[in-house]
Amino acid sequence: MANYKLMIPGPVDVEDEVLSEMASPVPAHYGDAWMKIYRETVDCLKQVFQTENDLFIVGGPGSAALDASFGSLLATGDKVLIPSNGFFGQRLRAMARGYGLEAVPLDFPLEQAISAAAVEAHLQKEKDIQAVAVVHHETSTGILNPLPEIAAVTNKAGVPIIVDAVSSLGGVPLPVDEWGIDLCITVPNKCLAAPPGISLISVSQRAWEMIESKSNRSHGWYLNLQTWKQYATKWARWHPYPTTMASNNVLALLASLRRLLAEGLETRYARTVKAAKMTREGLTDMGFEMFVEGPHASPLITAAKVRPDMSIAEMARFLRDECGIMIGGGIDELAGKIFRVGHMGKAISPDYIEAFLTGVGDFLQQKG
Amino acid sequence: MANYKLMIPGPVDVEDEVLSEMASPVPAHYGDAWMKIYRETVDCLKQVFQTENDLFIVGGPGSAALDASFGSLLATGDKVLIPSNGFFGQRLRAMARGYGLEAVPLDFPLEQAISAAAVEAHLQKEKDIQAVAVVHHETSTGILNPLPEIAAVTNKAGVPIIVDAVSSLGGVPLPVDEWGIDLCITVPNKCLAAPPGISLISVSQRAWEMIESKSNRSHGWYLNLQTWKQYATKWARWHPYPTTMASNNVLALLASLRRLLAEGLETRYARTVKAAKMTREGLTDMGFEMFVEGPHASPLITAAKVRPDMSIAEMARFLRDECGIMIGGGIDELAGKIFRVGHMGKAISPDYIEAFLTGVGDFLQQKG
Repeated sequence: MANYKLMIPGPVDVEDEVLSEMASPVPAHYGDAWMKIYRETVDCLKQVFQTENDLFIVGGPGSAALDASFGSLLATGDKVLIPSNGFFGQRLRAMARGYGLEAVPLDFPLEQAISAAAVEAHLQKEKDIQAVAVVHHETSTGILNPLPEIAAVTNKAGVPIIVDAVSSLGGVPLPVDEWGIDLCITVPNKCLAAPPGISLISVSQRAWEMIESKSNRSHGWYLNLQTWKQYATKWARWHPYPTTMASNNVLALLASLRRLLAEGLETRYARTVKAAKMTREGLTDMGFEMFVEGPHASPLITAAKVRPDMSIAEMARFLRDECGIMIGGGIDELAGKIFRVGHMGKAISPDYIEAFLTGVGDFLQQKG
Repeated sequence: MANYKLMIPGPVDVEDEVLSEMASPVPAHYGDAWMKIYRETVDCLKQVFQTENDLFIVGGPGSAALDASFGSLLATGDKVLIPSNGFFGQRLRAMARGYGLEAVPLDFPLEQAISAAAVEAHLQKEKDIQAVAVVHHETSTGILNPLPEIAAVTNKAGVPIIVDAVSSLGGVPLPVDEWGIDLCITVPNKCLAAPPGISLISVSQRAWEMIESKSNRSHGWYLNLQTWKQYATKWARWHPYPTTMASNNVLALLASLRRLLAEGLETRYARTVKAAKMTREGLTDMGFEMFVEGPHASPLITAAKVRPDMSIAEMARFLRDECGIMIGGGIDELAGKIFRVGHMGKAISPDYIEAFLTGVGDFLQQKG
């Protein structure tokens, strides 16, 4: 199929040495040789998550691991506070409702970060809330919610926090243990710069205590974290997970994690910030306004507003067909109003950004 | 990592042209180019499933799609009859219980096929059973359960049937529509000869009617087939599924499906039968007895009994370390008593089988 440079908000383009791992002869998902690979992958992930919590590699997309968090932590009827400022916050609510949880809303405008003070006030008011779930980086708009502050107020209230770090972990600081994140979920195919197919979840001791206190939930087997814990013990040396593992996808993730750790987290974060800056300066010079301004504008994607003299669909088509670059549009009410450029995976390299900015310039010139 | 010839009961070794698709530049999981690939994959799958039912590609292992079947079709407290003659039949019960279903047991000895007459008698006796779930090929022993007969009696009783065809579909006949299978689940990494990571599920009209009649189940979002149906409509042209797709794994599956359909299902089935025959004759000549004899011995794996003068663990180690071949052992009570050789993926080729038989001969000779 046609091969585009991916500058969408994920999945991302990955390095050749990572891709080539995908084509390794399929390894058995058990046995000494494999367990060495598996354990190294988990160790690397713990370094990136900056956690000593349990960490699982779950087959399926990020939504599978997020779903597992809700279903495992909470019982039908439980209240979970889900502040939201965009599409992925809303999706967390849909997941919570899927298990019959009461998804207590706390809404913020699309252009605004979630307020930790508002979360704190709500937790003080509604005492029977059992957990908080929040999106770290709202991929639909590029807002980086103030997670350390939000986690601090939930920790203070003694309530566990589920964090959707799907498009943030590995691209911006997220020290899981330091910030007190109970369930932290991400995927390879965003900032970890590997192909999609698996998801990653860390589980704190406090989360386990709540999970184990609610044994009669009827929330399933595969996405029940108790199943995963059981196999981690029962089959510890054989394969410490309940099913066949997507072993090629794990090999590719490991190759990418080794690169990330060799580069250093801080260096990668700095390169991401630089990529965002270069993109925004270039777009601003061409007359675009950013959708988010200020400290909550994440370096992970740039969301820019449409100019009155153009159509985003036309620009995206031009970039794809003339420049071989895919970018993202706006979702739902933002469709046609913003476009989104990802700064994850290979797209943080200056040549991707130059090609993109040149393409936008050419499009505008051609439009006259 | 070390590269072994996989003759385990899955995952399987796959052809180079399939593997190389895994290393394609990551495609976006939406857009015209991708949708062409996705639709062709679904079309090919429908040909292999021999079905006109809806068919979904779900991120996760076979257990994820099986779990989705139970959780979507049934409500907590519902009775599901699960005849079982091995480890994977027992696993279906664990999944059913995960959703608080009453997993009604009907047990058969490990060496014996499930009896359709017994299933029929049970359905006549216990009238409030809402569904039947059964393993087609019990991978832990190599028994191919008589699915057409089992499906016929469940169809006659007007009860939907969930079929775990994880290690059978693509290797032996399984015409889903002709046999009346409501939910049929398989994976790429067994008879479909592609790497693991995704699962495949077909859903009949009768299943949809039951699924939609039970809207208040609290069984989750990601593995709820209603979520999948909703996105198949809502985002039909964009991406007809709720999340990011493991796009490289789909590309590899498509390459393998094209090969399978070019070869022809009947030819592939015949090659599988021949592989099993060659293996069994070779092992019998060396004094091994088969664990299963007669018409229910599947051609998909050969399970042979240990000889009194040897240890299976030792033989497996010899084959791995001296011949670079991995085979499977027995699970649970069959550990140390049987070994299992898969006839799926590249392992159905005569050179794999020759290498295996030579290895076993060398092991026995070396032992004296």
